[in-house]
Amino acid sequence: MTRFALVVDYDGREFQGWQRQPHGPSVQSALERALAKVCNAPTATVCAGRTDSGVHGLGQVVHFDCEASREPRAIMLGVNTLLPISIGIRHCQTIESDFHARYSALARVYRYQLVNHPARPGGLRARDHAWERTPLNVQAMQTAASALVGEHDFSSFRALSCQARRPWRRMDRLHISQLENRITFDVQANAFLHHMVRNIVGSLLVIGRGEQPPEWLTEVLRAKDRTQAGATAQPQGLCFIGPRYPAHWGLPAEFDAAPELLEWRSSDPESAKPEREDEL
Amino acid sequence: MTRFALVVDYDGREFQGWQRQPHGPSVQSALERALAKVCNAPTATVCAGRTDSGVHGLGQVVHFDCEASREPRAIMLGVNTLLPISIGIRHCQTIESDFHARYSALARVYRYQLVNHPARPGGLRARDHAWERTPLNVQAMQTAASALVGEHDFSSFRALSCQARRPWRRMDRLHISQLENRITFDVQANAFLHHMVRNIVGSLLVIGRGEQPPEWLTEVLRAKDRTQAGATAQPQGLCFIGPRYPAHWGLPAEFDAAPELLEWRSSDPESAKPEREDEL
Repeated sequence: MTRFALVVDYDGREFQGWQRQPHGPSVQSALERALAKVCNAPTATVCAGRTDSGVHGLGQVVHFDCEASREPRAIMLGVNTLLPISIGIRHCQTIESDFHARYSALARVYRYQLVNHPARPGGLRARDHAWERTPLNVQAMQTAASALVGEHDFSSFRALSCQARRPWRRMDRLHISQLENRITFDVQANAFLHHMVRNIVGSLLVIGRGEQPPEWLTEVLRAKDRTQAGATAQPQGLCFIGPRYPAHWGLPAEFDAAPELLEWRSSDPESAKPEREDEL
Repeated sequence: MTRFALVVDYDGREFQGWQRQPHGPSVQSALERALAKVCNAPTATVCAGRTDSGVHGLGQVVHFDCEASREPRAIMLGVNTLLPISIGIRHCQTIESDFHARYSALARVYRYQLVNHPARPGGLRARDHAWERTPLNVQAMQTAASALVGEHDFSSFRALSCQARRPWRRMDRLHISQLENRITFDVQANAFLHHMVRNIVGSLLVIGRGEQPPEWLTEVLRAKDRTQAGATAQPQGLCFIGPRYPAHWGLPAEFDAAPELLEWRSSDPESAKPEREDEL
């Protein structure tokens, strides 16, 4: 039995999210179907961060075990042949059997992109950008966002359906940037609650539109009450840029979806401890 | 009668190219169908650069004439409502009646992107990147590409089906950059022959793979013979980033698909003359 780790990209619009679903296709079921053929046995996968319906992956990490003797490169190429073009494996390696894609991760990175313009995005950009018509005040959103950095109870940004045991998370970074009509939210935390990124972005939009002052976000955080926060932002703007692991696992530190995130590498939270199963 | 100019984005994979076709959907027919409803009359459009089947547009400029009295903003929003999400209008303005989207352009900019990796691209990246398995020598390609800058007879890179009257074009810039496994070709010329960008990229790939030295591209250019050049590169890697016009037309100088192209603005070829109809 050998454990393998994969780096996987997918177009979230084609799937009902990462996780196997009774209705509609999921990334997990498409991947496990292809792996079963290549490994010659039913194969269960675990991913670093489960994404919702419509949310993209660019650097998702997955582990699985295989009894058959297989070269990593043969798995990568074979599985890519069986998968639809909306999913691609871009890295495969063997890894120690105590590696766990979810519980070994120190942190996760998400990017949320939107077009802030009277006209909706069309063409290529419609695939991975949300749309906000009202002109947004980026400075006010950044001021508000800074209050979320650090360790907090994020109950106010947690979906009712969230199954995590504890609502505490360590937010490492929440940076908002603007390029012409496009606004990007880069978020890193040790782990995320269900809908947490989209609920935070939806609340920042309330501030960006001028409906609430920046201090309002601190009140929302303190309330620990989902009904106090803004609406969940649209899924197609969200992309899971991947997890970060301690260097000793030997996984590639890839952020090629977001090259400006490379600078983060130097501030890798190596001192942080991975979440344990009972804490998530 | 008022002339309008539009800036249009589209996902080339959904269309048989810009131009109206008897078989399959085209960007032009979808756009003209929507404009006919908004303008209440059959409406013919002219674009800055006709793109082939599968080639994307991010900043295509289009002009058309409308008898009915319409606000530019109402046209933009109305047409976007009627168009599929694979096309979007992001700018609309009135413009003098002697403006011509094609003949007023000083230059056109294309971007070609590919993933250079043993594994095919999947997910979001599969939409707008070609794939090259063999490791490419970017330095050799850049050396070869420099020989194409300037005014040349580009017959060797011209499709047999090309209807241009003359094979001479002024290549302003051909820059190749690499970020991890992704290679980008940025090309600006006064105008392009049919398949010219893809035939040049296909020939540069021959050099990048080490099958020919950089000097070979100069020989190919001099031969003025399409059979001497490399194969036409895959369409999905190509994106028309848009035309450039003299500033007096008052069109937005948008390159937001490719922010690093902003630096080119300072070297705008204002002194260059637009191509006249009889020269193209």
